[in-house]
Amino acid sequence: MDYRAMWESLGMDVKTHDLLCEALPGAFGSVYLSQDNRPEGMDYFYSVVAAIHGLRPAELVEHKKNGGKVVGTFCIHVPDEIPIAAGAIATGLCSGSQFWVPGGEKKLPVATCPLIKASLGARFDRTCPFFRLADMFVGENTCDGKKKAWEILAEDAPVHVMDIPQMKRPEDFAHWENELKGYLKKCEELTGNKVTPAKLREAIILVNKKRKALQRLASFRKLDNIPITGKDMLLVTQIAFYDDPARITEQIHKLCDELEERAKNNFSSFPKGTKRILLTGTPLSIPNWKMHHIIETSGGAVVCEEMCTGIRYYEKCVDESGSTIDEMIHNLAQRYMGGIHCACFTPNAERIDDIKRLVKEYKADGVIDLNLKFCNIYDIEGFFVERELKAAGIPVLGIETDYTDQDSEQLKTRVGAFIEMLGN
Amino acid sequence: MDYRAMWESLGMDVKTHDLLCEALPGAFGSVYLSQDNRPEGMDYFYSVVAAIHGLRPAELVEHKKNGGKVVGTFCIHVPDEIPIAAGAIATGLCSGSQFWVPGGEKKLPVATCPLIKASLGARFDRTCPFFRLADMFVGENTCDGKKKAWEILAEDAPVHVMDIPQMKRPEDFAHWENELKGYLKKCEELTGNKVTPAKLREAIILVNKKRKALQRLASFRKLDNIPITGKDMLLVTQIAFYDDPARITEQIHKLCDELEERAKNNFSSFPKGTKRILLTGTPLSIPNWKMHHIIETSGGAVVCEEMCTGIRYYEKCVDESGSTIDEMIHNLAQRYMGGIHCACFTPNAERIDDIKRLVKEYKADGVIDLNLKFCNIYDIEGFFVERELKAAGIPVLGIETDYTDQDSEQLKTRVGAFIEMLGN
Repeated sequence: MDYRAMWESLGMDVKTHDLLCEALPGAFGSVYLSQDNRPEGMDYFYSVVAAIHGLRPAELVEHKKNGGKVVGTFCIHVPDEIPIAAGAIATGLCSGSQFWVPGGEKKLPVATCPLIKASLGARFDRTCPFFRLADMFVGENTCDGKKKAWEILAEDAPVHVMDIPQMKRPEDFAHWENELKGYLKKCEELTGNKVTPAKLREAIILVNKKRKALQRLASFRKLDNIPITGKDMLLVTQIAFYDDPARITEQIHKLCDELEERAKNNFSSFPKGTKRILLTGTPLSIPNWKMHHIIETSGGAVVCEEMCTGIRYYEKCVDESGSTIDEMIHNLAQRYMGGIHCACFTPNAERIDDIKRLVKEYKADGVIDLNLKFCNIYDIEGFFVERELKAAGIPVLGIETDYTDQDSEQLKTRVGAFIEMLGN
Repeated sequence: MDYRAMWESLGMDVKTHDLLCEALPGAFGSVYLSQDNRPEGMDYFYSVVAAIHGLRPAELVEHKKNGGKVVGTFCIHVPDEIPIAAGAIATGLCSGSQFWVPGGEKKLPVATCPLIKASLGARFDRTCPFFRLADMFVGENTCDGKKKAWEILAEDAPVHVMDIPQMKRPEDFAHWENELKGYLKKCEELTGNKVTPAKLREAIILVNKKRKALQRLASFRKLDNIPITGKDMLLVTQIAFYDDPARITEQIHKLCDELEERAKNNFSSFPKGTKRILLTGTPLSIPNWKMHHIIETSGGAVVCEEMCTGIRYYEKCVDESGSTIDEMIHNLAQRYMGGIHCACFTPNAERIDDIKRLVKEYKADGVIDLNLKFCNIYDIEGFFVERELKAAGIPVLGIETDYTDQDSEQLKTRVGAFIEMLGN
């Protein structure tokens, strides 16, 4: 299907965007289609990626034609439940391609993390339909780079900033509840719809269902014979940030049903002796498949991502017990602040506990601590992560990288050596 | 006087510290003693620097012998008034020398700002008496680098973290008032002294007096013939973070009396045609005199620092009208949060208004926007600062540097060209 007319109507720079459209299939093909024995249930996700700037954006266009609104977010601390309860569509906006980085560097310092640069570049270069379709951009004060980047973005787009606390004391939770209430009001204003307790409850259940589906999918990675690659799991997780929640929930369960069969037959997506790697660190936004591809072509299997694009996104559900808006906001605050151990908090020792627990649960042979270049908070926290894992006898490799391919060969060598070192 | 016995008793690494003691006089001499026509009133400040790790630390040792406590701080958002009211001595701890950077890099990523690296290095290497003497280290969540660095520092030193809001809405001021109350309680616990309204009021007046003295000193820089160099003003400001507040107030006024005489005679510390430069950006901790020296040996005079080590430190006084602790805490919060336009806040447009106003008040010919390497918040905000100044017809030069001398020649060339460009 040809989406050019739609892209043009969205005010996109279609000519520049064509370059991305030309490059993506090749990149996707070499990373994904090269895999043997792909589950059939992945077809849906592959088809979504194949038309990533077409299929879903066309649905958003349709939604807007009917008076609906689109809310774009950049962070898993920001609850989708609230815009959904207001009748809006929530979509992730984090950008994972080097394609958008130079556009961001026109206004941001080079010494900014590639995720932030790419996100702003996607907006300013008009080369991403999601960045044209969002009626409200929800920024958050999680890190210095984002906090200040929203000021630049706000000159070109309607930005609402959520002030995430930096600590997790009782007064900080109270502050976050207030921020969520402000967000709810903003979403009501944007959509013109009142968020009723019934609507919010419905949204909480809807998003929890997506989480439970992802939990079910992840559980297969705990098996000795893992019936799905880390790359495929990552792709499903990434798409979960964009796709219709009910539909993707169904598709994930369909995939899980197939994996159930595979599991019965002790089918493994990896050859015997493949080393099990837990990835921790900064998020991997679509189409950032770089590290997974390197690991899984170097004798390793990614069994878990202790990342925003991983466990932190789906491992914990929101308590569904509340009946008033205030109670549900309280439950959302508990989940979206207490339940996420991001390096933006100080202190953040729970993250290290999480990694150690996940290493056991997913039987990881080693951990790769991955840092996007110029991400200060994860970079500094890496000091503790790597020290504590070593102290616990867990092999760990620290890697810093960006969205370019310039370091691929070096990373392959380092990752290969690390995996070899994990022994038998 | 020989302070070696004191340094040893403080558990310092005296041998490594000797290297610093050997280097400092040369550095100080070439930057400061090379100046012609230095005011006699600067002698006090020169003598303080000459024995920076001796004179004042000896006073702190004496204070502690008598049961007193020392509170070390890293940020001008943290009010000295509170520890002073509790009977403690407050001292600045920010470090401005490359000497301490490698020590910080042992635990912090290289891509961290030199101020943070040097501060941690000074503690971990045991080469700064102030870092041995502080009974409480007060960190603050101003930037990602500091926020996460306190976690590392806290493994070796007693750290109290103050959570500075990231925005300036009414609820953020309320949050900051709470943080100040918590700080007051901490200081009471540390010293065993109750902070009474009378004591707090006294401390507010004491610190205001120091501010007023610095304001008086700065006012001479508004004259057409400036009777004091920017380097000397910077040194006085830097020492104000460490010295006894009453004594330095007196010494600054003594210096001002002398400058008064100079002003009457239209004496200028600079040759005719010297260009007036306003510096804005990240702080210049002692002994970081690099940019001032380059500017003032390249045909420029620094007339104002829109910096933490400048205007932001002394331009605004705390309202002295309160009579209860709560009222005074409110006044302190207004001054220490509302009155400081740090790039850690979002948005922070008031800073640009400040720069434009100061350019007029100090009749600056141009602005140098100075960024310490890897300081994200000022780096990103520089986008607005430089754009808005250019739009207002104010020449501006953006410079990024660190504590090393490696870029000195390049900076001299760039600064020299900028000053030449300012014309006649």
